[in-house]
Amino acid sequence: MAAAVSRVGSPVLVGLDPRYELLPEVLKDGSDTSSAVRATAYSVFCRGIIDVVASRVAAVKPQVAFFEQLGPAGMNALADVIAYAQQKKLLVIIDGKRNDIGSTATAYAEGLLGAEGQSPWGGDALTVSPYLGDDSLAPFVDVAQERDAGLFVLVKTSNPGGAMFQDLVAEGRPLYRHVGEYVEGLAAKTAAECGYGIVGAVIGATHPEQLSELRAAMPHTWFLVPGFGSQGGSAANVAAAFDPRGLGAIINNSRGINFAYTKAPYKEKYGAALWQEAAGAALSDMIDQLRSETPAGNL
Amino acid sequence: MAAAVSRVGSPVLVGLDPRYELLPEVLKDGSDTSSAVRATAYSVFCRGIIDVVASRVAAVKPQVAFFEQLGPAGMNALADVIAYAQQKKLLVIIDGKRNDIGSTATAYAEGLLGAEGQSPWGGDALTVSPYLGDDSLAPFVDVAQERDAGLFVLVKTSNPGGAMFQDLVAEGRPLYRHVGEYVEGLAAKTAAECGYGIVGAVIGATHPEQLSELRAAMPHTWFLVPGFGSQGGSAANVAAAFDPRGLGAIINNSRGINFAYTKAPYKEKYGAALWQEAAGAALSDMIDQLRSETPAGNL
Repeated sequence: MAAAVSRVGSPVLVGLDPRYELLPEVLKDGSDTSSAVRATAYSVFCRGIIDVVASRVAAVKPQVAFFEQLGPAGMNALADVIAYAQQKKLLVIIDGKRNDIGSTATAYAEGLLGAEGQSPWGGDALTVSPYLGDDSLAPFVDVAQERDAGLFVLVKTSNPGGAMFQDLVAEGRPLYRHVGEYVEGLAAKTAAECGYGIVGAVIGATHPEQLSELRAAMPHTWFLVPGFGSQGGSAANVAAAFDPRGLGAIINNSRGINFAYTKAPYKEKYGAALWQEAAGAALSDMIDQLRSETPAGNL
Repeated sequence: MAAAVSRVGSPVLVGLDPRYELLPEVLKDGSDTSSAVRATAYSVFCRGIIDVVASRVAAVKPQVAFFEQLGPAGMNALADVIAYAQQKKLLVIIDGKRNDIGSTATAYAEGLLGAEGQSPWGGDALTVSPYLGDDSLAPFVDVAQERDAGLFVLVKTSNPGGAMFQDLVAEGRPLYRHVGEYVEGLAAKTAAECGYGIVGAVIGATHPEQLSELRAAMPHTWFLVPGFGSQGGSAANVAAAFDPRGLGAIINNSRGINFAYTKAPYKEKYGAALWQEAAGAALSDMIDQLRSETPAGNL
């Protein structure tokens, strides 16, 4: 991740969130909204976004839920999108928020992160949920290590409701700090030359103070930061997520880039016919903001 | 669930955990271990288990991880197994431990629990993880309500590592009690004539004291109790999960029934050729134990 971010000089992660109702009409097949037709549209749309962003970002993050909603046809489209992104030298973080215990966790990890020829999807990293504890995370870590892949554990999420349990204070510190400590331990144990380990953390852009606090407490942990743009996080909000080199964080934007053509100022300038140009322009603006207002300018 | 459990007179939930290495050789296609071949074997195996248990249990619980591991072919097999179980009048609890926020959570819920013709799988209930908080659970509850389906939220899991975060004490009580309170609120709001709501809780058989404590604290919440058998939970351990009518809990057994043919005393008596008979005998023994040692005898 550090090498990829340094190569492109940008810490942006582009989420791939194909939502049928938001796709440009040109990608839809009139009134046929069967799963097969929608799955094809998802594939074409995500490939189109990948074409626009591939040279300027390190990674993309397909959201499994939208593909899964279409059934097996959607899961085929997900495999297609992942393979296409990897052909374009992008790292693929599968956003599945999976978790389970023992050999069941291993099945998820091998399915989503497994080696070529063994896994139908073969992502480079996977988001996972921590509620089940250390013995649920261990099988994911084992598979990720074997495969030279990564994990991002939910620590402090961007949604308002995340506070409900994550902010409960136990033994003098909030739950998200307990989870963060465990994640940092795994990251430190697996740290590479760049200083970061294979286990990262999801920490929302909507919590600038916690980003700063956790950056200090988790020096070996790469942060995946959602909530930029649509959810209200700004470049200034996420500055604390980076180390002074501009490494240590990737800032996700899904809807703000995917569907830029539906929103000012891109809607007026490009519109639906130029949905790819709109996505490209939104990405350029985001990269400029991050490079001017955060340590990502040092990349 | 209450009606189905009363009808069959047994509180057993049969987990469907197809693990290729444990399937009877007769279901395998020699050296061909392609995803398509394995997916077919999973489907045949699960149908075989369903045939044996259908008249004696209320529900089955396919574990998504094993199907997902095989890719789209596996997800097709999952749809086949769900449809077959529902034909046999079984309720199907999809064990996916999904979670996400906002419209992404809605996509998972509609995909896995959606109405016939809209969802590729159409389960009757889904397991979900609570770490993301109330606004992540709400979309699942909304879809479940529309569809007359159910949810089971992870509260106190059966694995030893579950204690790591779930047992942290905040505001005088452990995290699992906080999660349990929120779940009970949702259950109370949606309670039907039987006294139980559409939102249940996953609480491991390996924690008899907590089962008793939570039964008292969560009177409207149906419990899904994993960890019986393979993980060490006994009938006596789960007695406290029931109300005096024998309702309020379903006790899961996956490997102990699925692969009974590999374990004493069923291995000796039946062996691989009679794997279905072995599963049936293991189920009979479990039902007898639960009926004699728990309030399930009153069903």
